[in-house]
Amino acid sequence: MDTPQIGVAGMAVMGKNLALNIESRGYTVAVWNRTGSKTEAFVKDHSDKNLVPSYTIKDFVNSLEKPRRILLMVKAGQPTDDVIHEILPFLDKGDVLIDGGNTFFKDTMRRNAELDSSGINFIGMGVSGGELGALKGPALMPGGQKEAYDLVAPILTKIAAKAPDGTPCVAYIGPNGAGHYVKMIHNGIEYGDEELISESYDLMKNVLGMSDDEMAKTFAEWNKGELSSYLIDITSKILTYKDDLGSGKPIVEMILDRANNKGTGKWSSENALELQVPQSVITESVYARYISMMKDERVNASKILPEVVNKDIKIDKDKVLEQIREALYFSKIMSYAQGFEQMEIASAHYDWDLQYEQIASIWRAGCIIRAKLLEPIMNAYKKNPQLKNILLDDYFKDIAGKYQDAARNVTSLAVQLGRPVPGFSSAITYYDQYRSAQLPANLIQAMRDYFGAHTFERTDRPGNFHYTWYKEQ
Amino acid sequence: MDTPQIGVAGMAVMGKNLALNIESRGYTVAVWNRTGSKTEAFVKDHSDKNLVPSYTIKDFVNSLEKPRRILLMVKAGQPTDDVIHEILPFLDKGDVLIDGGNTFFKDTMRRNAELDSSGINFIGMGVSGGELGALKGPALMPGGQKEAYDLVAPILTKIAAKAPDGTPCVAYIGPNGAGHYVKMIHNGIEYGDEELISESYDLMKNVLGMSDDEMAKTFAEWNKGELSSYLIDITSKILTYKDDLGSGKPIVEMILDRANNKGTGKWSSENALELQVPQSVITESVYARYISMMKDERVNASKILPEVVNKDIKIDKDKVLEQIREALYFSKIMSYAQGFEQMEIASAHYDWDLQYEQIASIWRAGCIIRAKLLEPIMNAYKKNPQLKNILLDDYFKDIAGKYQDAARNVTSLAVQLGRPVPGFSSAITYYDQYRSAQLPANLIQAMRDYFGAHTFERTDRPGNFHYTWYKEQ
Repeated sequence: MDTPQIGVAGMAVMGKNLALNIESRGYTVAVWNRTGSKTEAFVKDHSDKNLVPSYTIKDFVNSLEKPRRILLMVKAGQPTDDVIHEILPFLDKGDVLIDGGNTFFKDTMRRNAELDSSGINFIGMGVSGGELGALKGPALMPGGQKEAYDLVAPILTKIAAKAPDGTPCVAYIGPNGAGHYVKMIHNGIEYGDEELISESYDLMKNVLGMSDDEMAKTFAEWNKGELSSYLIDITSKILTYKDDLGSGKPIVEMILDRANNKGTGKWSSENALELQVPQSVITESVYARYISMMKDERVNASKILPEVVNKDIKIDKDKVLEQIREALYFSKIMSYAQGFEQMEIASAHYDWDLQYEQIASIWRAGCIIRAKLLEPIMNAYKKNPQLKNILLDDYFKDIAGKYQDAARNVTSLAVQLGRPVPGFSSAITYYDQYRSAQLPANLIQAMRDYFGAHTFERTDRPGNFHYTWYKEQ
Repeated sequence: MDTPQIGVAGMAVMGKNLALNIESRGYTVAVWNRTGSKTEAFVKDHSDKNLVPSYTIKDFVNSLEKPRRILLMVKAGQPTDDVIHEILPFLDKGDVLIDGGNTFFKDTMRRNAELDSSGINFIGMGVSGGELGALKGPALMPGGQKEAYDLVAPILTKIAAKAPDGTPCVAYIGPNGAGHYVKMIHNGIEYGDEELISESYDLMKNVLGMSDDEMAKTFAEWNKGELSSYLIDITSKILTYKDDLGSGKPIVEMILDRANNKGTGKWSSENALELQVPQSVITESVYARYISMMKDERVNASKILPEVVNKDIKIDKDKVLEQIREALYFSKIMSYAQGFEQMEIASAHYDWDLQYEQIASIWRAGCIIRAKLLEPIMNAYKKNPQLKNILLDDYFKDIAGKYQDAARNVTSLAVQLGRPVPGFSSAITYYDQYRSAQLPANLIQAMRDYFGAHTFERTDRPGNFHYTWYKEQ
């Protein structure tokens, strides 16, 4: 075996699968885990692979080719800091530490700055694709020192997923926390996509009365067109599976409607609030999960609160189904428009120089939100790297024009019939806000000036003004 | 003059007005400011009042009756910490510091804990009502040690606003940060109220074609009924004022539609995200302000993005106007339902034992959100202090039943006509989510288990389950 070109610290499933992925591309991989028995078992299970186990941090670090490349796949938060501090004494200037965990980007910014002063390179890398992606090819979003990225680029390029045109799904994202930031936005967008699909499912089931088989076929059909994506694809499959515990029903109908979360969607919304970016579709998706968790309260309320008055609305099933498809694509586009605008504002705020065409490109395979939609987004930024909002690009402008009517009809139908569509309704609302030269915020400014002398701007001249609304008694 | 019973540190407008308010109730007030000339000028301007100026912190503290009561009215954040650290050496155990600034509740929690260890009492007090409220009678939300509250209660009770039934608008809110927390929720609700009123104004103006005079009369009329509130009242007045710079137009139409914010609405949304509480109406109101700030981008987009296709919807003006009124009340109730549920979850999370009847009571006068609506909220919690959500109370259940149809009609009309109503639409969406025994979150859980083995719960038995969706190749 060669001297290991890279080491992986942390032998949970993601660490093991990434180690195997790297090894499969012709590298020798050093492996270490705090509990040595896990390392031992892993190497034993894969005795035909070029894996070099170590049982102390010192041995692990010393086993590596220089400059050293070490991929940390440990729990985010304090455990990551602990491992970094244990490894640090054995490292030399110019070595590269990569944190591939699910880390909050501000922690990565802090760690990058702390380590940079001692000459150690630190890359925070978003990894998307789950366990299988880690093994077969994930989407990788590395941020940190550019020269450090160059040292690991050959390996990352080989292990990353490949887009339909063969482009590897990895690129240098930017300095310090940029990689983990872009992964956070990816996850926020993922919340939005999942919410919008679940709203479509809800309307098909409860408004159009479709069976799970019919819905499965519909999603499979949709997956052949512009909506083609991993999440639509797996939805069409999920709907065909039967309960494994013998109820005879589709498994999806036996699953409790409480959608859990691991916090990354929340992070992206908190960041939107902090940077003053309207990010309503993702945030409504986060809140939709929260209210789904209040199952007992909802069941109780459903027995108390008045139902919708019968509206006697005639429904043309085929027509509404096509409108749901159009509303889904329209709403998904609004969610991406918000997510990309959030990245643009963050890029300026944190001084990252993010490259949006590249980000769309590396999301095309390996990751959970991989979708055909990313191609027109790439094209939009290729045509105009300074584009403020994807809606202003011709492709999206045209889709908005063609599909807004469906988005309006589906949202109002759902509102009239009492089916909650927070994703759809925040999407059409955002479109109408964004294209409104005039919003009623002038009245809010007047109120704020009235009760708090907060001043306002005028439409006809620059400056801040205060109006004498009343004489102080 | 007596020995001052209380001192006010910080002679900006809020500090000065509170000092004058306290003095007017028969107390002698010590005053201090970092820049002594401000203190000097203030005392000179009010030479007939019982005000005792000091020009050093030591003199200021020593001038006070013991146990000392000191109200800090300084800038939130570091300046507050600075003043506390300067005052601390001169204080004795049992003295009471009150921070009446616009402080983030977690800072208050930290300061209360730090000072408690040295025997100094620390009260974080939300003050609402603006400059005039400070002078004439604000709503006060003090949190901290109960025994410290008892030492200042007589003064606070005298200076607070009085509700219509004569009850003073002050009460002990709870330990450490509870007071500033409740003030933060007050401000979040204020954002929601202002957004909902501005959406009503937008629909009156752009859908019903009403003049500012007509709108002023409508709001004045509405203010006589269940919607009666300070913000509706000032809206009716604002709409009657003419431009003071001579355009001849109503001033509100000359104000630029960029709604600024000072961050407290954002704090309340960030906290909702953190505590996993659905708080969509307030959050959409925060986002509505953010997108209003993007004026140039909106004006540009308005020239590019396709408009609404002409819908040819017949509008019965009187009918729609009444529906807007009902939708406004309905939506306001949803916003309060979310805000009060957020307080309940926070109370359990931070161990505060908040008293909701009392909170509703002290918001009835002095503060910006004072409104008739607070009476039925008080009644709901009086009947059932453990009420999970005000919607479950008979009064609100009945209103929901009566007005939901208007809320649905107004929201769908706005969506069809392309007028953004993020407040109205998130309100009806919340109602439909909250009263839905079944939401489509089961599909989200299925997806999460499919791609990430995140497991799910089942409808028919307890426990966490994972489905074998595919054989790993």
